Amino acid sequence: MSGHDERAGFVDALGDILASWHLPRATGRIYGALLLRDAPATFDELRAELGLSAGAVSTGVRGLVSWGLARTIPQPGSRRLLIEAAGGFEQLLAASHERTRAFIAVLRSGARLVDGDAAAARLDDVSGLFEAYVDAGERMLEARRGAETAAGRPEIPLVE
Amino acid sequence: MSGHDERAGFVDALGDILASWHLPRATGRIYGALLLRDAPATFDELRAELGLSAGAVSTGVRGLVSWGLARTIPQPGSRRLLIEAAGGFEQLLAASHERTRAFIAVLRSGARLVDGDAAAARLDDVSGLFEAYVDAGERMLEARRGAETAAGRPEIPLVE
Repeated sequence: MSGHDERAGFVDALGDILASWHLPRATGRIYGALLLRDAPATFDELRAELGLSAGAVSTGVRGLVSWGLARTIPQPGSRRLLIEAAGGFEQLLAASHERTRAFIAVLRSGARLVDGDAAAARLDDVSGLFEAYVDAGERMLEARRGAETAAGRPEIPLVE
Repeated sequence: MSGHDERAGFVDALGDILASWHLPRATGRIYGALLLRDAPATFDELRAELGLSAGAVSTGVRGLVSWGLARTIPQPGSRRLLIEAAGGFEQLLAASHERTRAFIAVLRSGARLVDGDAAAARLDDVSGLFEAYVDAGERMLEARRGAETAAGRPEIPLVE
């Protein structure tokens, strides 16, 4: 594959993956393109590289900024903004934890609906598994945040 | 809400949640109904409770068995099988880890496509976050498996 094809492949793969995280595919592709860039991009550059409409780029960038995955940079003397990828997946992971916590709440709510003790024990077991899972993920995120604070700087750029 | 409505609500919620885990909604609803039952179900009972076709129940049960979320039990003197929920979410979580590992591989593959050092450092940081995340989840699953072995019995019923 040529470098251009590989780049397009990377961008499309990010679109697919972020779609499975409940983000629109175009938003994921924009993130993929931004991740490969050393310098911030203009909206026009993204539009041209990804074959998207101006509206799609605008919507996608707004989504990325709201998820902490990108930030906009004002340009002095211009109304146009530059866009830069941030590595803020912590926020998406936290949202995924929230969904899992909601799932656990549904499972726990089933405790008063079960037919008997065997079903109650099984439900408790499944709920416990997911609680252990989210707890492990949250401890990891906290440890990471602690390491960043100890180092005196965020390892991952945060949205301003 | 009546008990019946609550039960239907639980079943539909499981359908929604397992759909976000890439399982068909009917499959998730069958799992929800099985989770609440103390005794194994017949295919006919599931069909009647969930308003599904025989084919949909059959497909859903097959999916659940293949994911370790249910097991079938032969009935002596009959060709019919009973179905029982298992708590085997370990397999689904492992599949989720596999998807995340594939995502990390895509991110790592971007290292040779980046424009420069800043993009390389950011990509490495994002990849590291996901690696830490999957590692934490896998350690949790392993610790749980260890606890089960130590107790001399599986806490969560496994597929036979």
